[in-house]
Amino acid sequence: MPELRKDSVTGRWVIIATGRARRPSDFSREPVPKPLEGAPCPFCYGSEHKTAPEILAHRQGGGPNQPGWTLRVVPNKFPALEIEGNLNREGEGMFDRMNGLGAHEVIIESPAHSASLIDLSERQIEDVLWACRERIVDLKRDHRLRYIVVFKNHGDAAGASLEHSHCQLIALPITPKRVREEIDGARGYFAFRERCVFCDIVREESNSAVRMVTETDQFAALEPYAPRFPFETWILPKVHNSHFEDAEAGSFANLAWVLKSTLRKLDKVLEQPAYNFVIHTSPVQEERTPHYHWHIEIMPRLTRVAGFEWATGFYINPTPPEEAAAFLREAGV
Amino acid sequence: MPELRKDSVTGRWVIIATGRARRPSDFSREPVPKPLEGAPCPFCYGSEHKTAPEILAHRQGGGPNQPGWTLRVVPNKFPALEIEGNLNREGEGMFDRMNGLGAHEVIIESPAHSASLIDLSERQIEDVLWACRERIVDLKRDHRLRYIVVFKNHGDAAGASLEHSHCQLIALPITPKRVREEIDGARGYFAFRERCVFCDIVREESNSAVRMVTETDQFAALEPYAPRFPFETWILPKVHNSHFEDAEAGSFANLAWVLKSTLRKLDKVLEQPAYNFVIHTSPVQEERTPHYHWHIEIMPRLTRVAGFEWATGFYINPTPPEEAAAFLREAGV
Repeated sequence: MPELRKDSVTGRWVIIATGRARRPSDFSREPVPKPLEGAPCPFCYGSEHKTAPEILAHRQGGGPNQPGWTLRVVPNKFPALEIEGNLNREGEGMFDRMNGLGAHEVIIESPAHSASLIDLSERQIEDVLWACRERIVDLKRDHRLRYIVVFKNHGDAAGASLEHSHCQLIALPITPKRVREEIDGARGYFAFRERCVFCDIVREESNSAVRMVTETDQFAALEPYAPRFPFETWILPKVHNSHFEDAEAGSFANLAWVLKSTLRKLDKVLEQPAYNFVIHTSPVQEERTPHYHWHIEIMPRLTRVAGFEWATGFYINPTPPEEAAAFLREAGV
Repeated sequence: MPELRKDSVTGRWVIIATGRARRPSDFSREPVPKPLEGAPCPFCYGSEHKTAPEILAHRQGGGPNQPGWTLRVVPNKFPALEIEGNLNREGEGMFDRMNGLGAHEVIIESPAHSASLIDLSERQIEDVLWACRERIVDLKRDHRLRYIVVFKNHGDAAGASLEHSHCQLIALPITPKRVREEIDGARGYFAFRERCVFCDIVREESNSAVRMVTETDQFAALEPYAPRFPFETWILPKVHNSHFEDAEAGSFANLAWVLKSTLRKLDKVLEQPAYNFVIHTSPVQEERTPHYHWHIEIMPRLTRVAGFEWATGFYINPTPPEEAAAFLREAGV
């Protein structure tokens, strides 16, 4: 019989289905192709003038907006939000609007056109994490910005429009409802148990091991108990911290290793899937809290989201997380 | 400058972007192909034995599970939920689970393999609506079932796995969080204004006309003020009613006309898009309320949902609803 499971943080129920596709080979889709060198690309050396001037660059040589960089942050060419102007909250008949104030930046992870994130060295991935942190620390000084989300779309099916590997950052003038819901859920758990729900998840999964993928002394990569998607994977720091940008500096090298290892396992088991990952963190203008715990959620895009899911937020997942975890643990990388 | 707009019901903000694709021709995707006659199909005449025995059929001749039907309702072959058994709510370590009790049915709209919903006569579409209603009325007698969602996935990109035109019904033992959120939002509006937010939307849009697509004396088809997706379209009854299954019997003929007209406009303007539609209604075991108002939401699948949307529930929509409404109004069908 199918099973209904509840996410301990948000209270969202999911259906863990039986009698449907569930093994990695049962998901039919195109592997994400390796980008071909030679195509014109605004993120490659020599095309620096095709983007807006860089906001941040790590470089081994060259001047600003010149080749020689190893990582580069630029404004999105088609920004969803813009940093200049005022919010101007106002009514429009019975409705409410404000200006699209915010920031939308692109973190170009390396100059190599055909290298995916998993092809980069751990040191390069650590650099990407540092760049994300640096941009958050800079942007949060603008007190109009309430929430900053860092995410990656890998592959066409995950919404990537340029193949040269990059992450994105969007800074918003409000805290999105889904984020608030997650934080409120964690607060409710804390009020009831006086413990952080994410700390409890790490402990529980470390003990039972059935949904654990990789564990180091600093991080746990695991399949959550009630995942929305097959092979949805979370990476949680073991030390409690509500804000990503306040994470211990010494932990980023280990995080880079865990992130690379986890993405490589997914890549091997699911045969180059498209995926999204998102850093879940606290609103930047809010103090540190004992109830929320930053983490990374990785969602391989194997199934199509249909009408039922859109309407209800109630997901049907054909792969039990215990089985997904076993596949990933066994994948040597 | 991009604009942030708030959905009056749920409080969800969306970004109405500028400088991105926005006209119908700017969305590159494959039109949904017409199904070809002759392929083996479990929903065609002569294949009745390939589905589980029918739950309901409208027929002009023939016996149960024989050809001669004009509409047929059968259990889903791979049900997300099953009707036999007990809920058995229980803990599993720190987590919560219950059995996947519920119902999952398929409404086969007509015997014609290559006819989409928009190819059916208004009388046939009305029959589909009646069948949905009849199934809800039957299933709600099972008091374990709390919420019943009726939806349609049209085309591969919308999650359809069989091309023979059909709707689906899923009956759940809990009310999903997103549904509860919509109802709570409507209750909050009612508490503040002592009016139904959906009734207010119909009045406001009828007066301003800028987002109205089609209006009859009984229904309004309109682009909502803060749509998540380009060309997202809602059909609302003008008479307040919290439950779809309690809708006035005399209104279904008009609803069939409005639904067909709206889908044909979308089909023409967007060139045979994949789409989902969902009937939003009240939990079946709850009394009629003055604050919630059943309606249909249609979502053409033109853009890919990426990491940002998944993480935050914060949508970036490249097409202002005023422009979408103008395109749809002008599309003669």
